[in-house]
Amino acid sequence: MKTQTLKGFRDFLPKEAKKRQYVIDKIRGVFESYGFEPLETPALEYAEILKGKYGEEEKLIYEFKTRGGDEVALRYDQTVPLARVIAQYQNEIPLPFKRYQIQNVWRGENTQKGRYREFLQCDADIVGTSSLMADAEIIALVLAIYKKLDLNIKIKINDRKNFENLDKNIVSAIDKLEKIGESSVLSEMVEKGMNESDAKKVLETLSSKPQTTEIKTILGFLKDMGVNESKVVYEPTLARGLDYYTGIIFETVTEGSAGSLCSGGRYDNLIGTFANRDIPAVGFGLGFDRTIEILEEKGLIPSLDSTPKVLVTVFPVSPSQGGSKELEKKSIKIANQLREKGISIQLWLDGQDKLDKQLKYASLKNIPYVLIIGPEEDKNNTATLKNMKTGDQKTTTLEELVKELE
Amino acid sequence: MKTQTLKGFRDFLPKEAKKRQYVIDKIRGVFESYGFEPLETPALEYAEILKGKYGEEEKLIYEFKTRGGDEVALRYDQTVPLARVIAQYQNEIPLPFKRYQIQNVWRGENTQKGRYREFLQCDADIVGTSSLMADAEIIALVLAIYKKLDLNIKIKINDRKNFENLDKNIVSAIDKLEKIGESSVLSEMVEKGMNESDAKKVLETLSSKPQTTEIKTILGFLKDMGVNESKVVYEPTLARGLDYYTGIIFETVTEGSAGSLCSGGRYDNLIGTFANRDIPAVGFGLGFDRTIEILEEKGLIPSLDSTPKVLVTVFPVSPSQGGSKELEKKSIKIANQLREKGISIQLWLDGQDKLDKQLKYASLKNIPYVLIIGPEEDKNNTATLKNMKTGDQKTTTLEELVKELE
Repeated sequence: MKTQTLKGFRDFLPKEAKKRQYVIDKIRGVFESYGFEPLETPALEYAEILKGKYGEEEKLIYEFKTRGGDEVALRYDQTVPLARVIAQYQNEIPLPFKRYQIQNVWRGENTQKGRYREFLQCDADIVGTSSLMADAEIIALVLAIYKKLDLNIKIKINDRKNFENLDKNIVSAIDKLEKIGESSVLSEMVEKGMNESDAKKVLETLSSKPQTTEIKTILGFLKDMGVNESKVVYEPTLARGLDYYTGIIFETVTEGSAGSLCSGGRYDNLIGTFANRDIPAVGFGLGFDRTIEILEEKGLIPSLDSTPKVLVTVFPVSPSQGGSKELEKKSIKIANQLREKGISIQLWLDGQDKLDKQLKYASLKNIPYVLIIGPEEDKNNTATLKNMKTGDQKTTTLEELVKELE
Repeated sequence: MKTQTLKGFRDFLPKEAKKRQYVIDKIRGVFESYGFEPLETPALEYAEILKGKYGEEEKLIYEFKTRGGDEVALRYDQTVPLARVIAQYQNEIPLPFKRYQIQNVWRGENTQKGRYREFLQCDADIVGTSSLMADAEIIALVLAIYKKLDLNIKIKINDRKNFENLDKNIVSAIDKLEKIGESSVLSEMVEKGMNESDAKKVLETLSSKPQTTEIKTILGFLKDMGVNESKVVYEPTLARGLDYYTGIIFETVTEGSAGSLCSGGRYDNLIGTFANRDIPAVGFGLGFDRTIEILEEKGLIPSLDSTPKVLVTVFPVSPSQGGSKELEKKSIKIANQLREKGISIQLWLDGQDKLDKQLKYASLKNIPYVLIIGPEEDKNNTATLKNMKTGDQKTTTLEELVKELE
């Protein structure tokens, strides 16, 4: 029996789970301040909803037949389900629909490349308008999220129009410019059938392409939105996701991270797939794992205290240790009073255990304070608060205690 | 092509998703105030982890073979994964481990009975202590959660000891006492091989069984914890989940709900399954859908405003309508200023649209306020705020506006 998780799947123990919740709450807050609303879709869809949407990557979809005979597949991204939702509830969802979605997706990725098979995506999209003001707002939103997370990023932006007359294979070679450098890109372009001087010329023309009207308009809106001009950089060789995008495309640059944390663009032909009409859309996907990783590297996740701030100990009940049922009751009552004051406490739950064991537990769990109510404290109607970091202890009345802890 | 969800699976559109989030946040808050910490486990586990754990219900597990050849299964509950986690991280998790888990589970239920196949569970368990103070805390926690949600509930409590000498089939008949009444239960007991007078005697003896020492101790602790005595009722015929539980068992009673919203008990033999040692545990599972349903029925979910509180309109850019690029800019800037004040706003994103269309959208989406900046307002450096419920409008300076909206 393997008592372990599947390759590419993870447990999140409390410390990790709390960090993730902290970041999710921040992101959700920014989404909502921009008027985006939450959407949730099921983990399983009819497989045919997902088929034919992801090109070669389709083989990474987890699909199976249920006992009831349905061909089903696990959510692979949040865009295809969004397209399905838009078709299914056309009369209930007024457009533009500004939705965010924060759910897991599943992909049978190669785990040897350090990839996960279950991971959280945070998407935001504006569906139903082709106005460039929407493109600008999406970019402003990305900047606002990372500002909220205190992470310094820039956004590289381009317009897919800049690649209009180029073959798909050539574009995918150019896409690697930053990763592998100009000379390698040139060889790849030659491999793909271009002669060298043409290839050079293409790169040259491309890198000096002026901003399209659309880019100019978006940059103008961003300025009106109060976005610092240095934050958004026009990059005419940025080539991501051509198959899918129909207008602007963008990704993030961050010091210390090779890849983009958050990428997106305009895609006007996808959302209407199921509704059988054109529905323009612009949005992005935020890579949650990469974002968490870089926040941790840069020390930008505050050290979240253990959930209980105070361990309220129970003085060992046995009379040989000086305890009694009365003392136990007192601990229970004080725990209750502190909790009612909004202080997150953990009450030690076994009156048979020695104080040593209780203190050791607090230390293992990094609980910042321990409260002790012994016979002395009981007599004087006080309690002793021990700061587990400094070792300081202080015997005070309950009122003073509450003040200290708040 | 079926553009629909699978039977038993649900989309949550914004209105619904926000209600769910509201309730989840409340529950999470109470869990944490009692010192419980979050745990997350993967959606997929090795199938063998789940096999042999759910009796006849095992056939409801969603299981399949991946392309890579792994036999996997979707999370069926949160208790078996907890048992795996306890074994897998024995050296990292100090006991007692007080964990909560709020994740979806998947079961191939009969949807004709109105059951869902994907639903959220909220579990809390204390692992690693057999102290009855833990049992009491679990019950106090359930009461605290429903108090936080303003729902009046009671808890029925019993001790599985009361059934010690009874056959499993007889117990499952007695379990239906409240649902089908005494005479039907008696016939079922007879069907299952008891003679009628014995059956009557069993019911009689059972219903007058005095509280066990354990029940008395737990009720004592609950009193110390400040729980109102009328909230926890001893019910010697309560028989739920006998196969699984080893000590106290409990469920909730609420006016207006036939079933229990939240049930649990002590189960000392399950968590140690993978760790190969005895690990006592006590906890509960909260039925999220039932809880949401009854809260809605009783009007206990506050009417959550649409995420944006204000729609900041854009005066139509075309000069024939009196607008201009300058007015558009002004809307963008004011939207930005309001958002920076922490007011959730939605900026209308298309300067080509007429005001009518924008107002209609606000009304469809139940956005409470609409802000208009037209040529008059621009000249006087004011803005017009329209209350969409009352129809009142007010033209004021931006400063007054912020005050009004905060």
